[in-house]
Amino acid sequence: MRPVKVPEPQERPPMTRATDQPAPERPTADLGPTVADLFPDVTSDAARRLIISAVASFAERGYHATTTRHISEGAGLSSAAMYVHFPTKEQVLFEAGKVGHEGVLAAIREAVAEHTDPRDRMRELVRAFTLWHARHHTMCRVAQYELAALSPEHHAIIAEIRRQTEHFVREEIRRGVDSGAFVVPDVTTAALAVLSMGIDVARWYLPGRSVDAEQLADRYAELAASMLRTRPRS
Amino acid sequence: MRPVKVPEPQERPPMTRATDQPAPERPTADLGPTVADLFPDVTSDAARRLIISAVASFAERGYHATTTRHISEGAGLSSAAMYVHFPTKEQVLFEAGKVGHEGVLAAIREAVAEHTDPRDRMRELVRAFTLWHARHHTMCRVAQYELAALSPEHHAIIAEIRRQTEHFVREEIRRGVDSGAFVVPDVTTAALAVLSMGIDVARWYLPGRSVDAEQLADRYAELAASMLRTRPRS
Repeated sequence: MRPVKVPEPQERPPMTRATDQPAPERPTADLGPTVADLFPDVTSDAARRLIISAVASFAERGYHATTTRHISEGAGLSSAAMYVHFPTKEQVLFEAGKVGHEGVLAAIREAVAEHTDPRDRMRELVRAFTLWHARHHTMCRVAQYELAALSPEHHAIIAEIRRQTEHFVREEIRRGVDSGAFVVPDVTTAALAVLSMGIDVARWYLPGRSVDAEQLADRYAELAASMLRTRPRS
Repeated sequence: MRPVKVPEPQERPPMTRATDQPAPERPTADLGPTVADLFPDVTSDAARRLIISAVASFAERGYHATTTRHISEGAGLSSAAMYVHFPTKEQVLFEAGKVGHEGVLAAIREAVAEHTDPRDRMRELVRAFTLWHARHHTMCRVAQYELAALSPEHHAIIAEIRRQTEHFVREEIRRGVDSGAFVVPDVTTAALAVLSMGIDVARWYLPGRSVDAEQLADRYAELAASMLRTRPRS
Protein backbone atom coordinates (compact mmCIF):
# COMPACT_ATOMS: atom_id res chain seq x y z
CA MET A 1 0.00 0.00 0.00
CA ARG A 2 2.83 2.41 0.88
CA PRO A 3 5.28 3.21 -1.93
CA VAL A 4 8.29 3.71 0.36
CA LYS A 5 9.42 0.99 2.73
CA VAL A 6 10.43 2.68 5.96
CA PRO A 7 12.79 0.54 8.06
CA GLU A 8 11.03 -1.07 10.99
CA PRO A 9 12.11 0.65 14.23
CA GLN A 10 13.83 -1.56 16.78
CA GLU A 11 11.07 -2.67 19.06
CA ARG A 12 12.70 -4.66 21.79
CA PRO A 13 16.24 -3.76 22.86
CA PRO A 14 18.12 -6.96 23.74
CA MET A 15 18.24 -6.25 27.48
CA THR A 16 14.52 -5.74 27.93
CA ARG A 17 12.99 -8.50 25.84
CA ALA A 18 9.86 -9.19 27.81
CA THR A 19 9.55 -12.80 26.72
CA ASP A 20 13.04 -13.67 27.87
CA GLN A 21 12.00 -12.91 31.41
CA PRO A 22 10.18 -15.49 33.47
CA ALA A 23 6.46 -14.93 33.80
CA PRO A 24 6.06 -13.74 37.37
CA GLU A 25 2.89 -15.62 38.14
CA ARG A 26 3.02 -19.01 36.57
CA PRO A 27 5.37 -21.43 34.88
CA THR A 28 3.75 -21.44 31.46
CA ALA A 29 5.74 -24.41 30.22
CA ASP A 30 4.11 -26.70 32.76
CA LEU A 31 1.96 -29.04 30.72
CA GLY A 32 0.53 -30.91 33.65
CA PRO A 33 1.29 -34.39 34.86
CA THR A 34 -0.75 -36.33 32.33
CA VAL A 35 0.03 -34.66 29.04
CA ALA A 36 1.51 -37.79 27.49
CA ASP A 37 -1.88 -39.50 27.90
CA LEU A 38 -3.34 -36.93 25.53
CA PHE A 39 -1.78 -38.41 22.44
CA PRO A 40 -2.82 -42.04 22.22
CA ASP A 41 -3.24 -41.69 18.44
CA VAL A 42 0.12 -40.05 17.79
CA THR A 43 2.22 -43.15 17.43
CA SER A 44 5.57 -41.48 16.80
CA ASP A 45 7.33 -40.49 19.98
CA ALA A 46 9.09 -37.67 18.11
CA ALA A 47 5.78 -36.24 16.85
CA ARG A 48 4.37 -36.38 20.38
CA ARG A 49 7.42 -34.62 21.76
CA LEU A 50 7.16 -31.98 19.02
CA ILE A 51 3.53 -31.22 19.92
CA ILE A 52 4.39 -31.00 23.62
CA SER A 53 7.34 -28.72 22.87
CA ALA A 54 5.19 -26.55 20.60
CA VAL A 55 2.46 -26.14 23.21
CA ALA A 56 5.04 -25.14 25.83
CA SER A 57 6.55 -22.58 23.48
CA PHE A 58 3.18 -21.20 22.31
CA ALA A 59 2.19 -20.74 25.95
CA GLU A 60 5.49 -19.12 26.85
CA ARG A 61 6.21 -16.95 23.80
CA GLY A 62 2.92 -16.86 21.94
CA TYR A 63 2.24 -18.64 18.66
CA HIS A 64 3.67 -15.98 16.36
CA ALA A 65 6.92 -15.56 18.27
CA THR A 66 7.51 -19.32 18.30
CA THR A 67 9.81 -20.52 15.53
CA THR A 68 10.03 -24.01 14.09
CA ARG A 69 13.46 -24.16 15.65
CA HIS A 70 12.00 -23.52 19.12
CA ILE A 71 9.62 -26.41 18.51
CA SER A 72 12.26 -28.81 17.20
CA GLU A 73 14.95 -28.02 19.72
CA GLY A 74 12.45 -28.01 22.60
CA ALA A 75 11.72 -31.61 21.62
CA GLY A 76 15.43 -32.42 21.80
CA LEU A 77 15.68 -32.69 18.02
CA SER A 78 17.71 -30.86 15.38
CA SER A 79 16.50 -27.43 14.32
CA ALA A 80 14.52 -28.43 11.23
CA ALA A 81 13.18 -31.74 12.62
CA MET A 82 9.64 -30.41 12.90
CA TYR A 83 9.30 -30.61 9.11
CA VAL A 84 9.84 -34.36 9.15
CA HIS A 85 6.54 -34.72 11.02
CA PHE A 86 4.51 -31.58 10.31
CA PRO A 87 4.35 -29.45 7.15
CA THR A 88 3.88 -26.17 9.05
CA LYS A 89 3.86 -24.66 12.53
CA GLU A 90 0.14 -24.06 12.05
CA GLN A 91 -0.37 -27.80 11.59
CA VAL A 92 1.20 -28.45 15.00
CA LEU A 93 -1.08 -25.86 16.59
CA PHE A 94 -4.05 -27.54 14.91
CA GLU A 95 -3.03 -31.03 16.08
CA ALA A 96 -2.57 -29.77 19.65
CA GLY A 97 -5.88 -27.90 19.60
CA LYS A 98 -7.70 -30.86 18.10
CA VAL A 99 -6.35 -33.23 20.74
CA GLY A 100 -7.29 -30.76 23.48
CA HIS A 101 -10.81 -30.10 22.23
CA GLU A 102 -11.59 -33.73 21.39
CA GLY A 103 -10.15 -34.79 24.72
CA VAL A 104 -12.41 -32.65 26.86
CA LEU A 105 -15.50 -33.70 24.88
CA ALA A 106 -14.57 -37.37 25.32
CA ALA A 107 -13.91 -36.78 29.03
CA ILE A 108 -17.34 -35.33 29.77
CA ARG A 109 -19.12 -37.95 27.65
CA GLU A 110 -17.34 -40.69 29.53
CA ALA A 111 -17.98 -39.02 32.88
CA VAL A 112 -21.76 -39.00 32.53
CA ALA A 113 -22.09 -42.37 30.79
CA GLU A 114 -22.67 -44.48 33.88
CA HIS A 115 -25.39 -42.23 35.32
CA THR A 116 -28.98 -41.59 34.42
CA ASP A 117 -30.18 -39.00 36.95
CA PRO A 118 -29.52 -35.45 35.62
CA ARG A 119 -28.12 -34.42 39.03
CA ASP A 120 -25.50 -37.19 38.96
CA ARG A 121 -24.70 -36.59 35.31
CA MET A 122 -24.19 -32.85 35.84
CA ARG A 123 -22.03 -33.41 38.90
CA GLU A 124 -19.77 -35.79 36.99
CA LEU A 125 -19.78 -33.54 33.94
CA VAL A 126 -18.65 -30.47 35.90
CA ARG A 127 -16.10 -32.54 37.81
CA ALA A 128 -14.57 -33.94 34.63
CA PHE A 129 -14.68 -30.59 32.82
CA THR A 130 -12.99 -28.78 35.71
CA LEU A 131 -10.37 -31.49 36.18
CA TRP A 132 -9.52 -31.41 32.49
CA HIS A 133 -8.92 -27.66 32.46
CA ALA A 134 -6.89 -27.79 35.68
CA ARG A 135 -4.72 -30.73 34.66
CA HIS A 136 -4.14 -29.58 31.10
CA HIS A 137 -4.18 -25.86 31.83
CA THR A 138 -1.26 -24.95 29.54
CA MET A 139 -2.60 -26.97 26.63
CA CYS A 140 -6.06 -25.48 27.21
CA ARG A 141 -4.78 -21.90 27.25
CA VAL A 142 -3.06 -22.46 23.93
CA ALA A 143 -6.11 -24.22 22.50
CA GLN A 144 -8.37 -21.34 23.61
CA TYR A 145 -6.24 -18.26 23.04
CA GLU A 146 -4.42 -19.10 19.81
CA LEU A 147 -7.51 -20.12 17.84
CA ALA A 148 -7.24 -17.03 15.64
CA ALA A 149 -3.90 -18.26 14.28
CA LEU A 150 -5.51 -21.35 12.70
CA SER A 151 -6.27 -21.53 8.99
CA PRO A 152 -9.98 -21.15 8.22
CA GLU A 153 -10.23 -24.88 7.40
CA HIS A 154 -8.62 -25.92 10.67
CA HIS A 155 -10.54 -23.30 12.62
CA ALA A 156 -13.78 -24.74 11.25
CA ILE A 157 -12.87 -28.24 12.46
CA ILE A 158 -12.03 -27.00 15.97
CA ALA A 159 -15.14 -24.79 16.04
CA GLU A 160 -17.27 -27.84 15.22
CA ILE A 161 -15.81 -29.82 18.17
CA ARG A 162 -16.47 -26.80 20.41
CA ARG A 163 -20.05 -26.60 19.19
CA GLN A 164 -20.50 -30.27 20.06
CA THR A 165 -19.16 -29.67 23.57
CA GLU A 166 -21.40 -26.63 24.08
CA HIS A 167 -24.35 -28.58 22.69
CA PHE A 168 -23.63 -31.50 25.01
CA VAL A 169 -23.62 -29.29 28.12
CA ARG A 170 -26.72 -27.41 26.99
CA GLU A 171 -28.65 -30.63 26.34
CA GLU A 172 -27.69 -32.05 29.72
CA ILE A 173 -29.10 -28.93 31.39
CA ARG A 174 -32.17 -28.99 29.18
CA ARG A 175 -32.94 -32.61 30.09
CA GLY A 176 -32.51 -31.73 33.74
CA VAL A 177 -34.90 -28.81 33.42
CA ASP A 178 -37.43 -30.94 31.53
CA SER A 179 -37.33 -33.61 34.22
CA GLY A 180 -37.72 -31.05 37.03
CA ALA A 181 -34.22 -31.62 38.41
CA PHE A 182 -32.98 -28.10 37.55
CA VAL A 183 -34.59 -24.66 37.50
CA VAL A 184 -32.82 -22.05 35.38
CA PRO A 185 -33.93 -18.73 33.84
CA ASP A 186 -32.56 -19.73 30.44
CA VAL A 187 -30.86 -22.99 29.38
CA THR A 188 -28.43 -21.38 26.92
CA THR A 189 -27.15 -18.79 29.40
CA ALA A 190 -26.86 -21.38 32.16
CA ALA A 191 -24.79 -23.58 29.83
CA LEU A 192 -22.51 -20.64 29.02
CA ALA A 193 -21.95 -20.01 32.72
CA VAL A 194 -21.16 -23.67 33.46
CA LEU A 195 -18.76 -23.82 30.51
CA SER A 196 -17.09 -20.53 31.53
CA MET A 197 -16.46 -21.66 35.09
CA GLY A 198 -14.55 -24.66 33.79
CA ILE A 199 -12.78 -23.12 30.79
CA ASP A 200 -11.53 -20.16 32.81
CA VAL A 201 -9.82 -22.56 35.23
CA ALA A 202 -7.13 -22.96 32.56
CA ARG A 203 -6.45 -19.21 32.74
CA TRP A 204 -5.83 -18.97 36.50
CA TYR A 205 -5.04 -22.49 37.67
CA LEU A 206 -1.59 -23.10 39.05
CA PRO A 207 -0.83 -26.42 40.72
CA GLY A 208 -0.28 -25.72 44.39
CA ARG A 209 -1.61 -22.17 44.18
CA SER A 210 -4.83 -22.65 46.14
CA VAL A 211 -6.89 -25.82 46.04
CA ASP A 212 -5.85 -29.03 44.37
CA ALA A 213 -7.58 -30.08 41.17
CA GLU A 214 -9.75 -32.82 42.72
CA GLN A 215 -10.97 -30.51 45.49
CA LEU A 216 -11.65 -27.72 43.00
CA ALA A 217 -13.61 -30.14 40.80
CA ASP A 218 -15.76 -31.22 43.76
CA ARG A 219 -16.48 -27.65 44.81
CA TYR A 220 -17.26 -26.52 41.28
CA ALA A 221 -19.68 -29.43 40.93
CA GLU A 222 -21.40 -28.27 44.11
CA LEU A 223 -21.49 -24.62 42.96
CA ALA A 224 -22.88 -25.62 39.56
CA ALA A 225 -25.57 -27.69 41.27
CA SER A 226 -26.57 -24.61 43.27
CA MET A 227 -26.47 -22.41 40.18
CA LEU A 228 -28.84 -24.75 38.36
CA ARG A 229 -31.06 -24.70 41.46
CA THR A 230 -30.94 -28.45 41.62
CA ARG A 231 -34.12 -29.85 43.20
CA PRO A 232 -34.08 -32.77 45.65
CA ARG A 233 -34.79 -36.19 44.18
CA SER A 234 -38.42 -37.17 44.42
CA MET B 1 24.21 -21.78 22.51
CA ARG B 2 24.64 -23.22 19.01
CA PRO B 3 27.89 -22.39 17.22
CA VAL B 4 26.38 -22.42 13.72
CA LYS B 5 23.43 -20.23 12.84
CA VAL B 6 21.08 -22.30 10.70
CA PRO B 7 18.78 -20.17 8.51
CA GLU B 8 15.28 -20.05 9.89
CA PRO B 9 12.97 -22.11 7.66
CA GLN B 10 10.15 -20.24 5.97
CA GLU B 11 7.22 -20.70 8.29
CA ARG B 12 4.33 -19.01 6.59
CA PRO B 13 4.24 -18.94 2.79
CA PRO B 14 2.70 -15.62 1.65
CA MET B 15 -0.53 -17.19 0.39
CA THR B 16 -1.42 -18.98 3.60
CA ARG B 17 -0.64 -16.42 6.27
CA ALA B 18 -3.19 -17.34 8.87
CA THR B 19 -3.38 -13.89 10.44
CA ASP B 20 -4.17 -12.22 7.13
CA GLN B 21 -7.37 -14.20 6.99
CA PRO B 22 -10.43 -13.02 8.84
CA ALA B 23 -11.12 -14.89 12.05
CA PRO B 24 -14.13 -17.03 11.18
CA GLU B 25 -15.97 -16.48 14.42
CA ARG B 26 -15.51 -12.94 15.55
CA PRO B 27 -14.33 -9.53 14.42
CA THR B 28 -11.42 -9.19 16.83
CA ALA B 29 -10.84 -5.53 16.01
CA ASP B 30 -14.23 -4.59 17.48
CA LEU B 31 -13.40 -2.63 20.60
CA GLY B 32 -16.96 -2.12 21.66
CA PRO B 33 -19.06 1.00 21.52
CA THR B 34 -17.67 2.72 24.61
CA VAL B 35 -13.95 2.26 24.25
CA ALA B 36 -13.24 6.00 24.09
CA ASP B 37 -14.75 6.37 27.57
CA LEU B 38 -11.97 4.15 28.88
CA PHE B 39 -9.29 6.80 28.61
CA PRO B 40 -10.39 9.84 30.57
CA ASP B 41 -6.83 10.33 31.84
CA VAL B 42 -5.16 10.08 28.44
CA THR B 43 -5.45 13.69 27.36
CA SER B 44 -3.81 13.39 23.96
CA ASP B 45 -6.15 12.25 21.25
CA ALA B 46 -3.22 10.73 19.36
CA ALA B 47 -2.14 8.70 22.42
CA ARG B 48 -5.69 7.45 22.85
CA ARG B 49 -5.91 6.46 19.20
CA LEU B 50 -2.55 4.68 19.48
CA ILE B 51 -3.76 2.60 22.44
CA ILE B 52 -6.98 1.71 20.63
CA SER B 53 -5.05 0.78 17.49
CA ALA B 54 -2.60 -1.30 19.53
CA VAL B 55 -5.37 -3.22 21.29
CA ALA B 56 -7.04 -3.97 17.96
CA SER B 57 -3.76 -5.23 16.50
CA PHE B 58 -2.81 -7.25 19.60
CA ALA B 59 -6.23 -8.92 19.47
CA GLU B 60 -5.98 -9.59 15.75
CA ARG B 61 -2.31 -10.55 15.31
CA GLY B 62 -1.12 -11.19 18.85
CA TYR B 63 1.27 -8.95 20.77
CA HIS B 64 4.50 -10.34 19.35
CA ALA B 65 3.40 -10.18 15.72
CA THR B 66 2.26 -6.56 16.11
CA THR B 67 4.85 -4.03 14.99
CA THR B 68 5.10 -0.39 16.05
CA ARG B 69 4.17 0.45 12.47
CA HIS B 70 0.90 -1.52 12.79
CA ILE B 71 0.13 0.52 15.89
CA SER B 72 1.02 3.89 14.39
CA GLU B 73 -0.62 3.36 11.03
CA GLY B 74 -3.72 1.84 12.62
CA ALA B 75 -4.10 5.13 14.46
CA GLY B 76 -3.88 7.01 11.17
CA LEU B 77 -0.39 8.29 11.96
CA SER B 78 2.99 7.95 10.29
CA SER B 79 4.89 4.72 10.81
CA ALA B 80 7.10 5.80 13.73
CA ALA B 81 4.53 8.04 15.46
CA MET B 82 4.08 5.62 18.34
CA TYR B 83 7.49 6.66 19.69
CA VAL B 84 6.32 10.25 20.13
CA HIS B 85 3.93 9.04 22.81
CA PHE B 86 5.26 5.70 24.10
CA PRO B 87 8.85 4.52 24.51
CA THR B 88 8.06 0.90 23.64
CA LYS B 89 5.32 -1.38 22.38
CA GLU B 90 5.32 -2.99 25.81
CA GLN B 91 4.45 0.38 27.35
CA VAL B 92 1.33 0.59 25.16
CA LEU B 93 0.31 -2.92 26.23
CA PHE B 94 0.83 -1.91 29.84
CA GLU B 95 -1.23 1.30 29.49
CA ALA B 96 -4.07 -0.62 27.82
CA GLY B 97 -3.97 -3.37 30.44
CA LYS B 98 -3.83 -0.87 33.28
CA VAL B 99 -6.83 1.04 31.94
CA GLY B 100 -8.72 -2.21 31.49
CA HIS B 101 -7.95 -3.63 34.92
CA GLU B 102 -8.48 -0.36 36.79
CA GLY B 103 -11.67 0.23 34.85
CA VAL B 104 -13.36 -3.00 35.89
CA LEU B 105 -12.39 -2.54 39.54
CA ALA B 106 -13.81 1.00 39.49
CA ALA B 107 -16.96 -0.27 37.78
CA ILE B 108 -17.77 -2.90 40.41
CA ARG B 109 -16.93 -0.53 43.29
CA GLU B 110 -19.27 2.07 41.85
CA ALA B 111 -21.97 -0.52 41.15
CA VAL B 112 -22.27 -1.67 44.76
CA ALA B 113 -21.78 1.75 46.38
CA GLU B 114 -25.44 2.68 46.67
CA HIS B 115 -26.51 -0.60 48.24
CA THR B 116 -26.06 -2.12 51.68
CA ASP B 117 -27.80 -5.51 51.48
CA PRO B 118 -25.31 -8.19 50.30
CA ARG B 119 -27.93 -9.55 47.86
CA ASP B 120 -28.30 -6.17 46.14
CA ARG B 121 -24.57 -5.53 46.17
CA MET B 122 -23.78 -8.92 44.61
CA ARG B 123 -26.45 -8.49 41.94
CA GLU B 124 -25.05 -5.11 40.94
CA LEU B 125 -21.48 -6.38 41.16
CA VAL B 126 -22.14 -9.32 38.82
CA ARG B 127 -24.15 -7.09 36.48
CA ALA B 128 -21.37 -4.50 36.23
CA PHE B 129 -18.63 -7.13 35.94
CA THR B 130 -20.47 -8.99 33.16
CA LEU B 131 -21.33 -5.78 31.29
CA TRP B 132 -17.72 -4.63 31.42
CA HIS B 133 -16.39 -7.85 29.92
CA ALA B 134 -19.08 -7.91 27.23
CA ARG B 135 -18.71 -4.27 26.21
CA HIS B 136 -14.93 -4.23 26.29
CA HIS B 137 -14.41 -7.82 25.19
CA THR B 138 -11.51 -7.13 22.83
CA MET B 139 -9.66 -4.97 25.35
CA CYS B 140 -10.31 -7.59 28.05
CA ARG B 141 -8.98 -10.45 25.93
CA VAL B 142 -5.78 -8.54 25.31
CA ALA B 143 -5.52 -7.55 28.97
CA GLN B 144 -6.02 -11.17 30.06
CA TYR B 145 -4.15 -13.16 27.45
CA GLU B 146 -1.10 -10.98 26.78
CA LEU B 147 -0.09 -10.54 30.43
CA ALA B 148 3.00 -12.70 29.94
CA ALA B 149 4.42 -10.14 27.51
CA LEU B 150 4.63 -7.45 30.21
CA SER B 151 7.90 -6.59 31.91
CA PRO B 152 8.12 -7.91 35.48
CA GLU B 153 7.63 -4.38 36.86
CA HIS B 154 4.52 -3.76 34.80
CA HIS B 155 3.25 -7.26 35.41
CA ALA B 156 3.49 -6.65 39.15
CA ILE B 157 1.39 -3.47 38.89
CA ILE B 158 -1.33 -5.23 36.89
CA ALA B 159 -1.21 -8.26 39.19
CA GLU B 160 -1.79 -5.96 42.18
CA ILE B 161 -4.92 -4.46 40.56
CA ARG B 162 -6.15 -7.99 39.83
CA ARG B 163 -5.56 -9.01 43.42
CA GLN B 164 -7.63 -6.02 44.57
CA THR B 165 -10.47 -7.05 42.25
CA GLU B 166 -10.35 -10.66 43.43
CA HIS B 167 -10.18 -9.49 47.04
CA PHE B 168 -13.16 -7.18 46.53
CA VAL B 169 -15.35 -9.99 45.14
CA ARG B 170 -14.21 -12.42 47.84
CA GLU B 171 -14.97 -9.95 50.64
CA GLU B 172 -18.42 -9.21 49.22
CA ILE B 173 -19.20 -12.92 49.32
CA ARG B 174 -17.67 -13.30 52.77
CA ARG B 175 -19.82 -10.48 54.18
CA GLY B 176 -22.87 -12.06 52.60
CA VAL B 177 -22.03 -15.42 54.17
CA ASP B 178 -21.40 -13.81 57.57
CA SER B 179 -24.76 -12.03 57.44
CA GLY B 180 -26.58 -15.19 56.44
CA ALA B 181 -27.47 -13.91 52.96
CA PHE B 182 -25.34 -16.51 51.15
CA VAL B 183 -24.45 -20.13 51.77
CA VAL B 184 -21.34 -21.42 50.00
CA PRO B 185 -19.03 -24.40 50.58
CA ASP B 186 -15.95 -22.17 50.44
CA VAL B 187 -15.72 -18.40 49.96
CA THR B 188 -12.50 -18.44 47.90
CA THR B 189 -13.77 -21.02 45.42
CA ALA B 190 -17.12 -19.27 45.10
CA ALA B 191 -15.31 -16.01 44.33
CA LEU B 192 -13.23 -17.75 41.66
CA ALA B 193 -16.38 -19.10 40.04
CA VAL B 194 -18.10 -15.69 40.06
CA LEU B 195 -15.00 -14.03 38.61
CA SER B 196 -14.61 -16.74 35.94
CA MET B 197 -18.19 -16.42 34.73
CA GLY B 198 -17.60 -12.72 34.05
CA ILE B 199 -14.03 -12.81 32.78
CA ASP B 200 -14.75 -15.63 30.35
CA VAL B 201 -17.48 -13.51 28.73
CA ALA B 202 -14.67 -11.59 27.01
CA ARG B 203 -13.53 -14.84 25.38
CA TRP B 204 -16.83 -15.84 23.79
CA TYR B 205 -18.92 -12.68 23.64
CA LEU B 206 -19.83 -11.39 20.22
CA PRO B 207 -22.32 -8.52 19.94
CA GLY B 208 -25.42 -9.92 18.31
CA ARG B 209 -24.33 -13.54 18.74
CA SER B 210 -26.87 -14.63 21.30
CA VAL B 211 -28.12 -12.37 24.09
CA ASP B 212 -27.41 -8.68 24.35
CA ALA B 213 -25.04 -7.46 27.05
CA GLU B 214 -27.74 -6.06 29.38
CA GLN B 215 -29.78 -9.25 29.21
CA LEU B 216 -26.69 -11.37 29.77
CA ALA B 217 -25.74 -9.25 32.78
CA ASP B 218 -29.21 -9.69 34.31
CA ARG B 219 -29.17 -13.46 33.79
CA TYR B 220 -25.65 -13.84 35.12
CA ALA B 221 -26.65 -11.87 38.21
CA GLU B 222 -29.54 -14.30 38.70
CA LEU B 223 -27.30 -17.36 38.14
CA ALA B 224 -24.70 -16.02 40.58
CA ALA B 225 -27.41 -15.45 43.18
CA SER B 226 -28.45 -19.08 42.81
CA MET B 227 -24.85 -20.26 42.94
CA LEU B 228 -24.31 -18.43 46.22
CA ARG B 229 -27.56 -20.01 47.48
CA THR B 230 -28.90 -16.57 48.28
CA ARG B 231 -31.36 -16.74 51.20
CA PRO B 232 -34.56 -14.67 51.28
CA ARG B 233 -34.41 -11.39 53.20
CA SER B 234 -35.54 -11.75 56.77
